[in-house]
This record gives sequence, structure tokens and C-alpha cells, in this order.
Amino acid sequence: MYPPLKSRSRKAGLPPGVLMPSDTKGGTVVTWVNYDQEKFTEKVYSVLPESFPIDKSSGINWIHVQGIAHSEIIESLGSQFKLHRLITEDIATPGQRPKVEEYDRYVFLIIRSLDYYEDHGGHVEDEQISIVLFDNLILSFQEKNNTLFDSVRERLRLKRGNMRKLSADYLAYALIDMIVDNYFILLDKIGGNLEKMEEHLTSYPKEHLVEDIHNLRREMIFIRRSIWPLREVISRLLRQESNHFSKATLFYLRDVYDHAIQVIDAIEMFRDLIAGMLDLYRSSVTQRLNEVIKILTIVSTVFCPLTFLTGLFGMNFSYMPGLQWQYGFFVAIGIMIIVALCMLGYIKHKKWL
Amino acid sequence: MYPPLKSRSRKAGLPPGVLMPSDTKGGTVVTWVNYDQEKFTEKVYSVLPESFPIDKSSGINWIHVQGIAHSEIIESLGSQFKLHRLITEDIATPGQRPKVEEYDRYVFLIIRSLDYYEDHGGHVEDEQISIVLFDNLILSFQEKNNTLFDSVRERLRLKRGNMRKLSADYLAYALIDMIVDNYFILLDKIGGNLEKMEEHLTSYPKEHLVEDIHNLRREMIFIRRSIWPLREVISRLLRQESNHFSKATLFYLRDVYDHAIQVIDAIEMFRDLIAGMLDLYRSSVTQRLNEVIKILTIVSTVFCPLTFLTGLFGMNFSYMPGLQWQYGFFVAIGIMIIVALCMLGYIKHKKWL
Amino acid sequence: MYPPLKSRSRKAGLPPGVLMPSDTKGGTVVTWVNYDQEKFTEKVYSVLPESFPIDKSSGINWIHVQGIAHSEIIESLGSQFKLHRLITEDIATPGQRPKVEEYDRYVFLIIRSLDYYEDHGGHVEDEQISIVLFDNLILSFQEKNNTLFDSVRERLRLKRGNMRKLSADYLAYALIDMIVDNYFILLDKIGGNLEKMEEHLTSYPKEHLVEDIHNLRREMIFIRRSIWPLREVISRLLRQESNHFSKATLFYLRDVYDHAIQVIDAIEMFRDLIAGMLDLYRSSVTQRLNEVIKILTIVSTVFCPLTFLTGLFGMNFSYMPGLQWQYGFFVAIGIMIIVALCMLGYIKHKKWL
Amino acid sequence: MYPPLKSRSRKAGLPPGVLMPSDTKGGTVVTWVNYDQEKFTEKVYSVLPESFPIDKSSGINWIHVQGIAHSEIIESLGSQFKLHRLITEDIATPGQRPKVEEYDRYVFLIIRSLDYYEDHGGHVEDEQISIVLFDNLILSFQEKNNTLFDSVRERLRLKRGNMRKLSADYLAYALIDMIVDNYFILLDKIGGNLEKMEEHLTSYPKEHLVEDIHNLRREMIFIRRSIWPLREVISRLLRQESNHFSKATLFYLRDVYDHAIQVIDAIEMFRDLIAGMLDLYRSSVTQRLNEVIKILTIVSTVFCPLTFLTGLFGMNFSYMPGLQWQYGFFVAIGIMIIVALCMLGYIKHKKWL
Amino acid sequence: MYPPLKSRSRKAGLPPGVLMPSDTKGGTVVTWVNYDQEKFTEKVYSVLPESFPIDKSSGINWIHVQGIAHSEIIESLGSQFKLHRLITEDIATPGQRPKVEEYDRYVFLIIRSLDYYEDHGGHVEDEQISIVLFDNLILSFQEKNNTLFDSVRERLRLKRGNMRKLSADYLAYALIDMIVDNYFILLDKIGGNLEKMEEHLTSYPKEHLVEDIHNLRREMIFIRRSIWPLREVISRLLRQESNHFSKATLFYLRDVYDHAIQVIDAIEMFRDLIAGMLDLYRSSVTQRLNEVIKILTIVSTVFCPLTFLTGLFGMNFSYMPGLQWQYGFFVAIGIMIIVALCMLGYIKHKKWL
Repeated sequence: MYPPLKSRSRKAGLPPGVLMPSDTKGGTVVTWVNYDQEKFTEKVYSVLPESFPIDKSSGINWIHVQGIAHSEIIESLGSQFKLHRLITEDIATPGQRPKVEEYDRYVFLIIRSLDYYEDHGGHVEDEQISIVLFDNLILSFQEKNNTLFDSVRERLRLKRGNMRKLSADYLAYALIDMIVDNYFILLDKIGGNLEKMEEHLTSYPKEHLVEDIHNLRREMIFIRRSIWPLREVISRLLRQESNHFSKATLFYLRDVYDHAIQVIDAIEMFRDLIAGMLDLYRSSVTQRLNEVIKILTIVSTVFCPLTFLTGLFGMNFSYMPGLQWQYGFFVAIGIMIIVALCMLGYIKHKKWL
Repeated sequence: MYPPLKSRSRKAGLPPGVLMPSDTKGGTVVTWVNYDQEKFTEKVYSVLPESFPIDKSSGINWIHVQGIAHSEIIESLGSQFKLHRLITEDIATPGQRPKVEEYDRYVFLIIRSLDYYEDHGGHVEDEQISIVLFDNLILSFQEKNNTLFDSVRERLRLKRGNMRKLSADYLAYALIDMIVDNYFILLDKIGGNLEKMEEHLTSYPKEHLVEDIHNLRREMIFIRRSIWPLREVISRLLRQESNHFSKATLFYLRDVYDHAIQVIDAIEMFRDLIAGMLDLYRSSVTQRLNEVIKILTIVSTVFCPLTFLTGLFGMNFSYMPGLQWQYGFFVAIGIMIIVALCMLGYIKHKKWL
Repeated sequence: MYPPLKSRSRKAGLPPGVLMPSDTKGGTVVTWVNYDQEKFTEKVYSVLPESFPIDKSSGINWIHVQGIAHSEIIESLGSQFKLHRLITEDIATPGQRPKVEEYDRYVFLIIRSLDYYEDHGGHVEDEQISIVLFDNLILSFQEKNNTLFDSVRERLRLKRGNMRKLSADYLAYALIDMIVDNYFILLDKIGGNLEKMEEHLTSYPKEHLVEDIHNLRREMIFIRRSIWPLREVISRLLRQESNHFSKATLFYLRDVYDHAIQVIDAIEMFRDLIAGMLDLYRSSVTQRLNEVIKILTIVSTVFCPLTFLTGLFGMNFSYMPGLQWQYGFFVAIGIMIIVALCMLGYIKHKKWL
Repeated sequence: MYPPLKSRSRKAGLPPGVLMPSDTKGGTVVTWVNYDQEKFTEKVYSVLPESFPIDKSSGINWIHVQGIAHSEIIESLGSQFKLHRLITEDIATPGQRPKVEEYDRYVFLIIRSLDYYEDHGGHVEDEQISIVLFDNLILSFQEKNNTLFDSVRERLRLKRGNMRKLSADYLAYALIDMIVDNYFILLDKIGGNLEKMEEHLTSYPKEHLVEDIHNLRREMIFIRRSIWPLREVISRLLRQESNHFSKATLFYLRDVYDHAIQVIDAIEMFRDLIAGMLDLYRSSVTQRLNEVIKILTIVSTVFCPLTFLTGLFGMNFSYMPGLQWQYGFFVAIGIMIIVALCMLGYIKHKKWL
Repeated sequence: MYPPLKSRSRKAGLPPGVLMPSDTKGGTVVTWVNYDQEKFTEKVYSVLPESFPIDKSSGINWIHVQGIAHSEIIESLGSQFKLHRLITEDIATPGQRPKVEEYDRYVFLIIRSLDYYEDHGGHVEDEQISIVLFDNLILSFQEKNNTLFDSVRERLRLKRGNMRKLSADYLAYALIDMIVDNYFILLDKIGGNLEKMEEHLTSYPKEHLVEDIHNLRREMIFIRRSIWPLREVISRLLRQESNHFSKATLFYLRDVYDHAIQVIDAIEMFRDLIAGMLDLYRSSVTQRLNEVIKILTIVSTVFCPLTFLTGLFGMNFSYMPGLQWQYGFFVAIGIMIIVALCMLGYIKHKKWL
């Protein structure tokens, strides 16, 4: 449930920079894409090659690692491209907070990608994406082995958009943009779910529903925690302390920044809406309780006196006036009707019906 | 319900700057107004002309696009006036957050206009207004096809105020002012609605009412989200980083800024008031519950012992003392009256009546 | 209820600077006071004179307008002393937020004065005070026609304190101080009211009381909104960006600033106290509910089994053991007593009594 | 209850700097201590002497005023040492907010000293301490006539610590430290009280207890309001804008600053703890309510059908099957037992027992 | 319970810098470790030696004091290494807030180490760690006598990692890192506990559980208070105002800073989760209450009229129609069945079943 705590707590007492075998299941696939405006080559490895023939003149390179289970691959890439060992440790340890660190030779970014599955109130799965941006090289690491970045590669291969013409920092932007766009899909799904829940609320509310709402609220806490720091991350890139991003790309990054703020806005709004729904639910539950108790009170108020009267006339005293009287029964019934009407009148007066 | 999420989530994986056909219904009308202190010409197009004969000497131009359904019109205007394609994308994508972006040649503004319809607790409809301010030209885009800016055009045509004498930035101010003034109408209506609800609360509260209040509270969340960023937008214009606004117009903008703050103040106040009303509602519901249960308890407390006594004297034992006694019945009645009085006394003592 | 929204919403679509006839009832009285260390003259006008013979050498002048119903008077003063028309608009439009604006020739201030009337939970009435401070002239405008500033004029006339010796900015300080001092009176009254309510709470709580508390809470929202911005207003004057206030007067302004902070402190404290009282009220209501339900449960728990037993022995079967037995009745009574004692013992054990 | 409001509200309309006779009861005692490393003299006055023979060479002087009821003493001291009349007014007006004001010749400090009395939830009494620090002179004023600073004088007299060797600013530090140390005593007492309340909560909760907790919560509001500004006061002294504190003393002041933050931390923590206790109390009350209602429902559910059955067999129809039957009674009893067991089984199934 | 308040409140009125005998039980063990890349010597003292032969050339020295009960040891170390007496006082007084103070010769740090014991909702024990970092010397003080830093010493002894090659500031980092890593263990345990509680919540909720959740919530308040200031402490070290930390070590410190933020994030998340759980618990309790009351109402609603009817036919009037009729009983039964069905139909209609 709380992987960052787990993975980190197992490391207590070890020297920094030690990579632990990850809990994450699944193989590790490494994809090397080399492209410039003319050419596009793509190689897939399941075992890391000795070294990547990357030099200044070879166009733009993108080495993408899917699945971080095999920490030796990360370590090998780290040593080949001379990453600080704390960075390789961060890459190999799932559950990091989104952050950016700028160095002379590269920028290091961690972002969290989120997926939403619609079961009871829905649950969210996230994975950690690490990006290292060099001058003409991008290393990217993905916690799980899925197809998140396939469409970016597709756009490169098919020369869609003008990514092929642009430099490595634009590719970094495209990856970040991809992840942030996914947030919109996520929030769109949650928004739909919220709408459905809201409709259920106004009809008959079920216990099941509250648990779903609470569940969704809990997921929002996780989502918020994963996305919130992103704002600062991008804002820091925009402040342009290093020169890893060109001015043109910064323009696009500013667009991503706007999106990130929209996402955070929507998260806050959803939290407010969920709080409002729980409030409304509570109101309606109390309302129903009131109604049920009113019925109980009405029934008791009407029948208690009547039952008392029947008991009264059912007593076995030898000398009871009226019992022998011919119209006694009818008079008794009459009294009861009058009492019942009085009680009903009182209830009417109290506006319970 | 959450258009920004929807429209954005459909774009995931596409290159930036792609315009999607908008969901917004209705045609697109383009109005070109050209004016200076002497002349005023106005042309309405439903198909965009090849190009607008706009040059430095031709007075002030205002091209207003009502309805953004036909994205090709936005694209064509964008290319004619050399807008960045991310800007045309923003214009064509409803649901943007209010923002301002300053460039060398122009300032780009997004603001949200709000309308309030008074059904159950009321609901709010908003639309996105995009304004691009050049030196002697304003492009404005309106999400829906309505009469929002007709009164501004009217003032220009009839030479009311001194807008005709002033430059394009004053026109931009007039448009922003128009939108912010509409917020006051909106809030005035909501204020009236709140007052009505408050009156209902102090009289007999109905289930219906809570739902209305909750509904209004939800709408306030949307309103807040639409208006809140405006404050920063105008404050940024006031900080005057570019020179698109003259000093005289900045003075008027400061007035709009004051109004924006008043609007935000009022929104916060309304939120507080709504929270207070829900609180009061809850108090009164609990109060009523207490009263109902008191009645129930009083009835039970009085009649349970009496019914027991009648049952006692109704038992069929052959040998029961008093049954044969001539005054037995009356003594029994007496006992019952005493018991009832004791019970009522106890209730009185507890201050339940 | 929300005058700023109302007055502003009627202006939507009009050019800025247009003065609307105010809703405020009552006439407009203009008082011109001219004084220096030696002389003191005071003139009262109900119709504005052509012009005020004010020059640099004529001592200090204070033109005070009570009641802003006649907007032509404001307009005329505005044109005579060359105020920007947005300022005259602000002066004539009640419901402005406290603010300060510094210009070359003058400082413009809006402050809100508050009065408290002690009916159900009390209600607050506020009015807008506008002050324009020139070098040796003060214009002040008061929304309503009351005696707010009479004591200041009195002090001037009677040469109490050393106001007569000091410059116009000290008079401005005196006016602000007067308003802030009134806040203390207001809060003192509310404090007294709170104390009374608190006493009522610990004795028998009534429905009426909750409504009063809620009412007071709502008034606190209004008060807070009126006073809160004052802090920033004075703090801005203290930062001394213009030179309209002398160093000596700034010293006194700092005193007012301290008072403003004390007032805001007290408001926050009152809000906390009110929240606490509502909380305590809810606790005590729940407590009472519990008690009532306990009584109900005790009565039912004791008498249900007993009534069942009487019913049992009241059945009409021909062959029922014990009915004919001489001691049957007494044994039955005995059983009932035992059952009742068991039930009471159980209740005792549960600590309900 | 709210002395600052009261004392300030009485002054509305008066010129600034007027001293009102204080409400505070009790006499005024003035103590003059003169000391350096060798000598220590102490004189106690109940009537102020003409003047204090204080000059640069006379060592360090500490004039301490206990009780501010006699405002003429404050006024006389103020004029003798040339204090601004707003400062003498602040000294003579109880209920000021903690603050620091730095002048050329002296620093003026207001701090609030707190005492806690352990009655229902405890109540807090505070008094205002004003300190004026000159180069070799300290004036200190204490609202009430108690022994707060006796231990400091004792330390001076007995030459404990090295206060005698150090300058006047160290004495000022010692006074502030004394007051802040008292906060720890206060919070320690409250902490003990909280612990006791917490123990009571887990055992049987009484109505009385909630009121105590609420009472304590209210006192925390007052305490917070008195202490919170202290943080800023000391932090401002530390920023060392004037040179009234030597670098060595600033080191000690930083220690006091740490203590002040600890105190504020503890206050916030207590507020959280109190909120948690009230929450837990509410939970336990609801829990008890549930239990009581369960018992009620169980009793009703079991006995209502049984009583109905006895009533059924108690009807007086001539022709009722089974009444004459020899085993009728026992079969009826059997039916009742079966019904009762069914009901109990249902209750068991619902997990109410 | 609140040791800092207790220990501090006992000092009120004493001069600063006085060491009080600590409440902490247990002996004091001093360990002196001297190491460089080649050598490693370790000596354990229970009585402090006259002096430590530490000079510039002797490699790196680490003097670690376990247990602060014997304040004379702290005092002696303080005088030997010329610490300010306020620092020795801080070291000897448990319950300090985490802080950092930078001096010319050394940096002084206080951090709190936390341990979690899993009883009812768990409880947390914390201890105070003080670290003084000189150029080639570290003094560290631990409140309790436990094995917290043994693994660091182990790493030094076994030359694991490259700590032996690095300077004293890296050792300081290693100690801080050790403590922060322990927070992850703590939070991991709490996370597990939370999960277990959440599972219990969805199954049958017990009173016991709420108390555990409240207990955990209270512990979170303490944890938060202990860890929150750490963020600022490390951030201050990173701002590098002194030069006690080398650039390489700062890199590692930044890693610790990231971890501290993760820890604080997790704490906030846990607080949100706990609040959500309490909310869900309340919902489910109310839900259960509603169900119980529904059953009560159903039973009463069905049987009250029936019992009334049996009472009616059980009255002893001589002349009652139908009693003598042969089918009277069966008709009465029929009426009762119809009444019961009507009542059940009504209940069905209300959707209570």
C-alpha cells in the first residue's frame, strides 16, 4: 500500500546509493531510438549491450527502460553515462516524490504516472517515471512494463508533428506532456464516476455508496500527493537555472505548466465535491432517520392510549359501570375514536404528517 | 460536466497545437469593427474573408468571433495574425483557466464569463473569452454565440463614453470590465437566492431545501474556480511588464482589479454563509428529532405502566383480592390516575414539557 | 442585504465613472470647517456653494459631506478639486472595500464604519467613509447622515488635545482613529452578548438561542469582511510611499495600526468562541437526547415483560395451571416483581441510572 | 471578560494619549534597584519620589512598578524619562497585544504573563508587563501587584548567576525569560489536566466533563492569543535593528525565542489534543446511544409479538378453537417460545448481541 | 507525557545554563571512535577520562554519549570542547525541538529519533539526539541508552561504504540519515497498522477500534511535532551559511532532505487517511443506528394495531356484536391479517425492507 515507505524502510542502516532488488514484477525491456530529421532507427534489448555508440554527431538518442526490476541494468546505464549513484538509487527505488535536480551535464526528473481502474469508487495505480536529459540524449526509466510512451515513439517513427526536427529537450517535453495528458484522462474518468455517484445520492442512498465515496476520497489523497509536487517541478524548470531547455521548448513547457495547474485545480475541486457529497449523504440519512422515528412516534402515540382503554374495559372487576349496559361497547368504541382523532389532530398540529 | 478535462483528455498522445472540432454547438459569427474618433464601420461575416485590410493608419480594429465551433476560422485568424499555435489551441479548447501571457507583439488573455440560471439552488453556465491585444487591433473569441459584448459595440457605435477617443487597450479594458460587471449580476442573483433560502430555513425546513443549498454550494465551487485566478491575471497586467497597456488604461484596470477582489470577497462570504445555513439546518433537524422523541417517550412513560395495571386486573386468577370488591374498579382507576400523575410529574421535573 | 453587489450589478454595461442616484435615504449636509491655531470657523450648507475660497495660506480646511444621496454634490466637489472620476464614482457607490490609493496631489481612503444593534444575536449596520487628504484640505464623505464625526469637530472647536496646532494629516488620523475606536465599542457589545449567550447555554438551551448564535456568527462574517482589509490599508500608509503623512502623524497611525490588529484579533477570537459555543450546544443537545432515550428504554424494558406476563395470565384457556390455585395471583405478582428487579438490575449494571 | 475591548471602547472620541483610571484594583508599589558588580541597593516607595538620581555612572537601575491602578505614577515616570505619551497610554491600558517598538533612546516591550487556576477545566488569568529598556536603566510595569519578578530581584541581591556583572539588556532578558518560563509551568499544569480528562474519557464520560473540555478549549483560545505574538516580538529583537541589545545578550534572547516556539508548538498540540478528545467523546456518546437503542429494539422485538399472542388468546369470542382443548395452554406457551427464539435468532443474526 | 514542558517548567526562576539532573533512567556510556582510511580504534568509557587526546592530525574522532542521565559528563565534555553553556543545557534537557545553530567553530544540531510500539493503535517513544560537528570531531548525545547508532559504527569498523575515506561532516550526515531512515520504518509500521484498521472498519466496527484510531491520531500529532521542524533544519544546512559541510556531503544532505519531505508527506497523508477512517466509521455507526431503529419501527408499526385489536375483542362488555358469532374469531383473525398486510405494504412502500 505504501511502497515508498516499504522500500525505503528496508534500507535503514545501509550506506547511501545501494540498489535493492525491486519488488516490481515483470521483465525489463530497453529500447534505443536514434533519430534526426532524416533517419529513425529503433532497437529493442532485453539484455543491455556493452555500450551504446553515442557521440555528439549521431543525432538524438533516446534510451528507454521499461520495468526497473533488474537493478543491474540501471546500475550499468548509470556507470556508462556517469550518473551520481544517488540518482541511480532514486531511479531504482519506486515511490519517489516528483522532483527535479539540475547538474552541469544533465537534468534529472522524477514524475509519477497515474492510471485509474473503475471498481468500487475506483482505485489508482501509479508508477514512477525517471528522465535524465543530456545534450543529445535522453535516458528514461519506467517502473512498470507498459505501453505508456508507445504513442510518442509512434509519432517519432511516423514523423508526426515536428518532433523529429527538434532537439532532445523537446522530446523530454513530449514525455512529460504525455504523462500530464494522462492525468486528464484519469480525472475525466473520476469526474464521470463522481457524476454517477451524485445521481445515486439523490435517489435512494445505499451503504455501499458511502464506502465508494470514501474510497474515492482516499484515492484522491494519493493522487494529490503524486501530482501536487509536479507544479513546483515544472515551475523550477521554467525558471531556467540551467540551460538544458531551449527557449522554444520552454514555451511548450509553460503550456504543460498550465495543464498541471488545471489538473491540480480539478483535484481540489473534486475534493470539495466529494466533501459536499458526503455532507449531503449525511443530511439525507438524518432526514430518513427523522422520518422513521416520526412514524414510530405516530403509531405509538395513537395506539398506546387505545390499547390502554381496551385493557381498562378488559379488567375483571365484578362491579364495573357500563359493562352490562347495552350500548357500553359502542360508547367505548366511540371514546376510542375520539381519543385517536385527538392524537391525530395533535400530530397534524405538530406538522408531522 | 467537466469540459476542460474531457476536451483535454481526448488529446492525450497527440502533438501539441492540434485543434479538435469543438463540442460547442451553434454557428460562428465574425464581426469586424473599425473605428476612430470620426468613423465607425461594422461588418458581419459568417465566412471568414481572405484577409483583413488592417494597417497601422486604419484606426482601431476589433475582430470578434462568436462561437468557436468552426476551428478552421480560429486557425485562419491565427495564421493571418501570426499567433503561436499553442495560443490558437487554447482559444479553440474550452475550459481553460483564466490566464495572461505577454509576448512582444501582443498580450493574450483568457477570462471566463458566467451566467446564472435560477432553478433548484440555481446552476451556473460559463464560457471562455479569449482576447488578443495588438497595438491597434483586438481579436476576441467567445465560446458561445450570445450577446455578451453587444452593449460594448453599442457604446462604440453611439459614441457613448469616450471609448472612441482612446486606444485599443482601453477597448480591451472595456471587454474585461463587461465580464467582471456580469459577475456582480451573478452574485446579486445568488445573494437573492440565499436570502430566500435563509427565510425558508427559519420556517419549516424541507428536504428539498437542503438539496438546493448543497446544489448552490456546488455551484459556488465552480464559480470560485472560474473567478479566483482572474485576480492574479489582472494583477499581472498591472505590474506592467510589457507596454501593451497605457498608464491611463492601467488606472481603469486597477478599478477592475478592485472589483475582482470585491467579487472574490463576496464569493468567500457566500461560502461562509452557505456553510452557516447548512449548520443551522442541521441544528434545527436535530432539534425536531429531539422533540419527536420526547413525545414518544412521554407517551410510553405514561401509558406503559397504565397498560400493565389494566393487564394486571385483567388476569384470570380465581382468587384475586379486590376483584369482587364493590369499589375495586374505582380504586384501580384511582391508582392509575396517581401513577399517571407521578409520571407526568417526573416529566415535568425533567422539563420535557 | 448585499448592497455592493446590487449597486454594482446595476451598472453593468455602462461606461466607467457614471454616478447612479444612490439608494441611501436622507438629505445631504455639507460642513466646511476652517481652522488654525488661532481661529475656527464652521459653515453648514445644504446646497453646495459655487466654490470654496481655499488657498495655501488659509489654514486647514475640512469639508465634510454627510449622506451621499445627492450625487451631484459629490460630482461638483470632485470637479472643483479635480478628483479622478473613478474616485467620485467610488465615493458615490456604497459597499466599497476598504482601500487606499495614493496620488501626487492627494491620498484617497475608503474605510467602513460599523454600528451594532442588539436584537436577536444582534445585527450590524455599516456605512462607507471616504477621505481625500490634500496638503491643507480634507474632503470626507459619509454614507449616512449621522453624528459619527461630531466629537472630532467638538474637539477642534473646543481646542481639546493639540489637533488645532497640527496639520491636515493629523486630522485625517483623528477621523480614522474615531472609526477604529468605534470598532472597540462594537466588539465590546458583541463580547457582552456572547457572555450572555454562554450563560444561557450552560442553563437550559433553547432553540431560539441557536438561531441567535448563528445570527451572530453571520454578522461576524460581515464584520470581518468590513474590517479585515483595514489592516492592509493602514500598513500601506505606514510604508509611506507618498509624503502625505508627516513622520509625527505616522507615529499615531502606527498606534491605530496596533488597534486595528487588536480588533482583528478579537474578531478571530470571537469566531473561535462562537464555533466553540455551537459545538457545546450540539454536545448538550445530544446529551439530552441520550437521556430521553434512556428513560424510554428503561420504561419499555421494565414494563414490556410485565405486560406480557399479565397478558399470559389473562388468556382464556380452560385448562391453565395455577389459575384456580389459591395463591396463584400472589405467585404471579411475585414473579413479576422478580422480573422487574432483574430488569432494573440489568439497567443498573449498564449504568443508565 | 474582554478587558482590552472595554478599556479601549471607553476611550472612543477622546484625544490619544489620555490615561484613564484603570479598573485594576490594588495599590501601586514602586521598587528602585540600583546595582553593579560590587553594590546592590533596593528602595521601595508607595509614593513616587520627586526624581530618581540616575546618571550614566551610577551602575544599572531597575525601577519596577507593581500595579498600574495609580495612573499618575505612570504619567510622572513617563514625563521624568521622556516617554512618548502613546507609550504611557499603552502602559496604563491593560489588554494590549504583545509588541515591541524601537526608538533612539529606548526599546519598548509589552508581554503578557499568564497564570492558570485549576477549577472546572481551569481558567487563565493574564496580566500585562511593560518593559522600557534604556542604556543603563530599565522601567518595568506590572498590571497586578504580585510577586512575579521577586525571584529575579533575589538572584540580583544574592549575586546568583552572573547577572550583576552584565548590563541592563541582560536584566531585560532575565525578565522576559522569567515570563516565558512561567508559560512552561502553565502548560505543564494544563498538560496534567488534559491527561486527567483523557483518563476520565476512557472511563464513563459525564456531561460535566464535556463542559470542562470546552472550557479548557476556550481558555486555550485566550492563551494562544496572548502568547502567539510574542514569537514575532522576540524575532524582531533578534533582527537587531537598534543596538539596545548586546551580541552576548542576543545569544540568550535566541534561547528565549526557542522556548517561545516550543510554547507555541505545545499550544497547537494541545488544541489538536482537545479537538481529538471532543471527537472521541462524541464517538463514545453515539456509541452509547446506539447500545441503548439496541436494547430497546431487542426488548420490543421480542415482547411485542408475545404480547400480541397473549392478547389473541385472551379474546372473548365464544367459539375459539383450542381454548377448550386440554393442552391448548401448553401449545400456546410453546408457540410463544418458538416466536421468541426466532426473534432472538434474528437479533443474533444481525449481530446486536 | 509532556517531558519538555515538565523539565522546562522546573527551571523557572533559575539562571540560564543550569543543568538539572535528568529524569531519564539508565547509565551513561561514552564511546570514543578514532578513524581514518587506515586505522580504526574504539574505546568505551563509563567514567569520562580526564581529556581526549584529539589534535588536528589524529584523523576523525567521534565521541558518542549514550544516556544523558549523568549531566556532569555533558558538562565536562562541554567545558573540554568549549561549548556555550546554553548548548550543554539544551543537550541535557530532553524534549527540545529539532533545530540547528551555526557557530564559528562548530554546528550544533538537535534531532528527534522515534520508535513505534504496536499496542492499541500503537504508541511512539522519542528521544533527543544532539550532534556537535567540529572540523575533525563529532560529539553526539543520545537521550536513551540504546543501539541506534551501532550500525553506523559497524559500517565504520568494517569499512563498508566509503565513510572511512570521507571527512567528519559525512559522518554527521550518516547519523542524520540513520535517524531519518528510522522514520521510514516507523511510518511503514504505522501504515501497516492503518491497513489493518481499515480492514476492520469494513467488517463489523467495534468501539475498541475507534479508540485505537483516536489513539493513533494522537500519536500522529506527536510524530508530526517531532519531525516537522526537521525539514527546516536540513534546509538551513543546505543553504550553507557556514562552511562546516563540504559540497560533496551537501549533495548527500539534499538526499536526506528529499527523504524528510517524503516523511512529512506521508505524515500528512496518514492524517488525512485517519480523518477519513473516522468519518467512515461515523457513517457506518449512523447507518447501523438507522437500521436498528427501522426494525424497531417496523415491529411497533405491525404489532401495535394488532395488539389493540386483540385488546378490543378482549373487553368484557356484555353486549359486544360478533363475540357470540360462530365465525367471529376467524373474521377477527382475518381483520388482523389484513391490518398487518396493510402495515407491511406501507413499510414496503417506504422502502424500509
